[in-house]
Amino acid sequence: MKSILLASCQDSRGIIHAITDAILRIEGNILDLEQHVDAQAGQFFMRAEWDGGELAAFHKRFKPVADRFHMWSAYYPARQTQRLALFASKEEHCLIDAILRVESSQLPAEVAVVISNHDTLRSVVARYGVRYELFEITNENKREQEKAILALLDTLNIDVIGLARYMRILGEDFVNAYPNRIINVHHSFLPAFQGARPYHQAYERGVKIIGATSHYVTEKLDEGPIIEQAVQRVGHKYEVEDLVEIGKEIERQVFYFALKKHLERKIIVFDNRTIIFH
Amino acid sequence: MKSILLASCQDSRGIIHAITDAILRIEGNILDLEQHVDAQAGQFFMRAEWDGGELAAFHKRFKPVADRFHMWSAYYPARQTQRLALFASKEEHCLIDAILRVESSQLPAEVAVVISNHDTLRSVVARYGVRYELFEITNENKREQEKAILALLDTLNIDVIGLARYMRILGEDFVNAYPNRIINVHHSFLPAFQGARPYHQAYERGVKIIGATSHYVTEKLDEGPIIEQAVQRVGHKYEVEDLVEIGKEIERQVFYFALKKHLERKIIVFDNRTIIFH
Amino acid sequence: MKSILLASCQDSRGIIHAITDAILRIEGNILDLEQHVDAQAGQFFMRAEWDGGELAAFHKRFKPVADRFHMWSAYYPARQTQRLALFASKEEHCLIDAILRVESSQLPAEVAVVISNHDTLRSVVARYGVRYELFEITNENKREQEKAILALLDTLNIDVIGLARYMRILGEDFVNAYPNRIINVHHSFLPAFQGARPYHQAYERGVKIIGATSHYVTEKLDEGPIIEQAVQRVGHKYEVEDLVEIGKEIERQVFYFALKKHLERKIIVFDNRTIIFH
Amino acid sequence: MKSILLASCQDSRGIIHAITDAILRIEGNILDLEQHVDAQAGQFFMRAEWDGGELAAFHKRFKPVADRFHMWSAYYPARQTQRLALFASKEEHCLIDAILRVESSQLPAEVAVVISNHDTLRSVVARYGVRYELFEITNENKREQEKAILALLDTLNIDVIGLARYMRILGEDFVNAYPNRIINVHHSFLPAFQGARPYHQAYERGVKIIGATSHYVTEKLDEGPIIEQAVQRVGHKYEVEDLVEIGKEIERQVFYFALKKHLERKIIVFDNRTIIFH
Repeated sequence: MKSILLASCQDSRGIIHAITDAILRIEGNILDLEQHVDAQAGQFFMRAEWDGGELAAFHKRFKPVADRFHMWSAYYPARQTQRLALFASKEEHCLIDAILRVESSQLPAEVAVVISNHDTLRSVVARYGVRYELFEITNENKREQEKAILALLDTLNIDVIGLARYMRILGEDFVNAYPNRIINVHHSFLPAFQGARPYHQAYERGVKIIGATSHYVTEKLDEGPIIEQAVQRVGHKYEVEDLVEIGKEIERQVFYFALKKHLERKIIVFDNRTIIFH
Repeated sequence: MKSILLASCQDSRGIIHAITDAILRIEGNILDLEQHVDAQAGQFFMRAEWDGGELAAFHKRFKPVADRFHMWSAYYPARQTQRLALFASKEEHCLIDAILRVESSQLPAEVAVVISNHDTLRSVVARYGVRYELFEITNENKREQEKAILALLDTLNIDVIGLARYMRILGEDFVNAYPNRIINVHHSFLPAFQGARPYHQAYERGVKIIGATSHYVTEKLDEGPIIEQAVQRVGHKYEVEDLVEIGKEIERQVFYFALKKHLERKIIVFDNRTIIFH
Repeated sequence: MKSILLASCQDSRGIIHAITDAILRIEGNILDLEQHVDAQAGQFFMRAEWDGGELAAFHKRFKPVADRFHMWSAYYPARQTQRLALFASKEEHCLIDAILRVESSQLPAEVAVVISNHDTLRSVVARYGVRYELFEITNENKREQEKAILALLDTLNIDVIGLARYMRILGEDFVNAYPNRIINVHHSFLPAFQGARPYHQAYERGVKIIGATSHYVTEKLDEGPIIEQAVQRVGHKYEVEDLVEIGKEIERQVFYFALKKHLERKIIVFDNRTIIFH
Repeated sequence: MKSILLASCQDSRGIIHAITDAILRIEGNILDLEQHVDAQAGQFFMRAEWDGGELAAFHKRFKPVADRFHMWSAYYPARQTQRLALFASKEEHCLIDAILRVESSQLPAEVAVVISNHDTLRSVVARYGVRYELFEITNENKREQEKAILALLDTLNIDVIGLARYMRILGEDFVNAYPNRIINVHHSFLPAFQGARPYHQAYERGVKIIGATSHYVTEKLDEGPIIEQAVQRVGHKYEVEDLVEIGKEIERQVFYFALKKHLERKIIVFDNRTIIFH
């Protein structure tokens, strides 16, 4: 059995030694370990993957270490299939890409449900045998509907939420229910072109490269910790529709990367930035 | 003898036919022609390169065509060595890169002078046998000094100005003296992180990609027509100094590209955007 | 109505002028024209797209020009939906990617049929309502089966064939029936790692970048004119399976690019190399 | 004082724990640690960087650990300036790039000498105040001359050799004198286009991407462990000279990367492949 540990705390001497001691005592053999100290913040970050031993036994050995260093930590079985809820509106490119990658085992997850504020994508989702739930949202019923969605997600034991071009801003209560577990894809190279219609803005400005950004959702719109960014070169012949088309490729790419890294337990969030382990 | 034509006008039928007629009549053989119409603006853009014929003869044949279509146009001998003035402050990376590329004939230009507001780089420039002129600039003497620089540039028959990380904003009169002939390199992926200290901003925001931008200088700071942008992937271990270091590579790259395209007569500016021919 | 012309011939003066004359006479307005001369071969290449006029009328005007310059040429309505046959074996990534891009109109084609030497992908193709034909192939029946496939393609009026990781080498007669109309994707950065199991070879050699190549199929295996290549950075932690996984992304990308450029009539083949218009 | 350790051995439980114990006992604080096991080979690889403690003291604590695990290891002060010898022939691009990067402290080294088999670059090297030694080499005197070079390098306490487009194949004795310390740059994307004139081969084949490779020199030409590869997109308009020109940029890039990673003690060679730490 393989296990994964993520850990972070204020830096001091002996942390790796103490953690690897706990792993050694349960007869775990470390296969991959990555650690570094952020010199500016004086903060320690580490991810380890090991083979052998039980997590229950590890917990017992590791608890005193975590306490001693006032550590934030999380540990998991390595090959756990997580339960994913995908939110979408009318555009399918990120949604179907994620569903197909789950199907082909590129993402270690199962898609428990697709939630949408429109009925547009019901039939296209049906092809893949994935459950589709419509929650129509108006400014009036938003609070109530999000509560209903939360209740459903709770029933479904959702681990992580992917906003696959979901065009509704989530309320504070919703966001706080899944801290660092809601992944959004923004259709620009943040912080350039925040807000709506970024491809129009990019066209107007005559940029030579466009991009997309995946990030964790926080209360502040478009300002959550960035997980991944990618770009594509564009030229003077490209019209807005071309930028939109190319943008879809980049959006898919950063969305997939973010889901993958999250599901593989390779992200720590610290001070509104992400540490992404290799 | 090879020649180059750049042309732009409101689109209508028969423009290429009329231009190629003028080239044919002087017995020119077209080696490369690129044309397109910007559908949204209804604007025609073209670049042609041909072999044979004299520009004086071409002028005679072409003039009526240009008049008939109310065309903006410019034509040149293809292998003309242009005279370049490079402006710098204290950082040498873009400056020396450009000097070396001129020396190795990667840029079809000669560096007539380096102008700086500091004496810092005098000795490093001396290695390459390039003239170095110091114009110390304060808020008080700026107008006057820029006049003096303009006078010098005039004497030196400067064709194009490259701001190789010149840390002074040029005055309106100066900018207007060389429209679409002053190339600046901005140390961010515009329009993200305008203004000063973009790498600090990028670090704070936790971006995963940083960039640089070369553009023509206009009266509005950081808003001139973009010529080139390039990017580099960065990670969570990178401190501000690392971003600065990597940024230098990207700055060099976009500065070189912009100088090259400009010197090869491959840029048309239209509506604050650039058309960059291949 | 928009039309497209591809043309190539030995270079001489006046060719563009003569072609644009033909377009002007049918009252066509050129929207995009790209031309260049390969200096080494002395060969002229051009693509033009124009609005207005009828192709029948164009034919009449253009014929004498083509004759005069001994030109290879082809012209088409611009927005013609071409009929595509996709060949696959057991892997679906390129196949489904192409089907989805046709469905979303990113590729101007309709998938008339999927042809496979295995039944593996029948159900996954069925989702998209695309016809699936099984032609089991052994060394003994290959010639016969390929004849049968050719007969079917003929019935279906196939314009272009995409080999979406089809693991059978096509016979000479088959290849000659669709010259420069069969597109293959090879799972390496040709000419490195020709033949089978390129990802194993890449792993053994310890390369830092892997790639894929799309090309037109000719009689010589893996040596047809290259249309597109793309690469991805890999590292020392990547095992063969990781290379295969990443390779799939690159294969999809080069296959899509090749189909798109071909369908948009942006490729001329000359001397076993491709001219790809922008 | 900061120190760096590189270590590799057959994998077993407890290795990291034992190493970090040694570091802890000399009161070192680990700032960066990267470890992984190559599952296929069952081989353990690690790099650690720590602050505090003396290397002499570390040696005493670490020696039993290294012995116990039959470990290959090396450790160094982190900010040691290494002595670099650059070999060149007639082309200056890689050579001058490396000299400038040393000068600007991008490479933690000093260039002790430039060795060349031609006098061509003497004056250009003189600009930078670097010693230049000519060793003319014929097939007859090669063995002897290489001996003389080795003697000089020995006198100069050379740590690492960079072949900056040195167009002579080094003899076996020479190569064996600096195992995994001679870095070459090959002007192709190995293993494509081995041997001479790779850009001509690339042109003939009509590839869409060209590349360059830096690697450690071994007895087998062009087959040493690859350190870095990079590529650039090219098109049908590019003639051989354009490929050569673009190739120079890529060559510089992979040469710089290899020197940097080597000087930063971030490379382990195992089984003719390189482990490159981040």
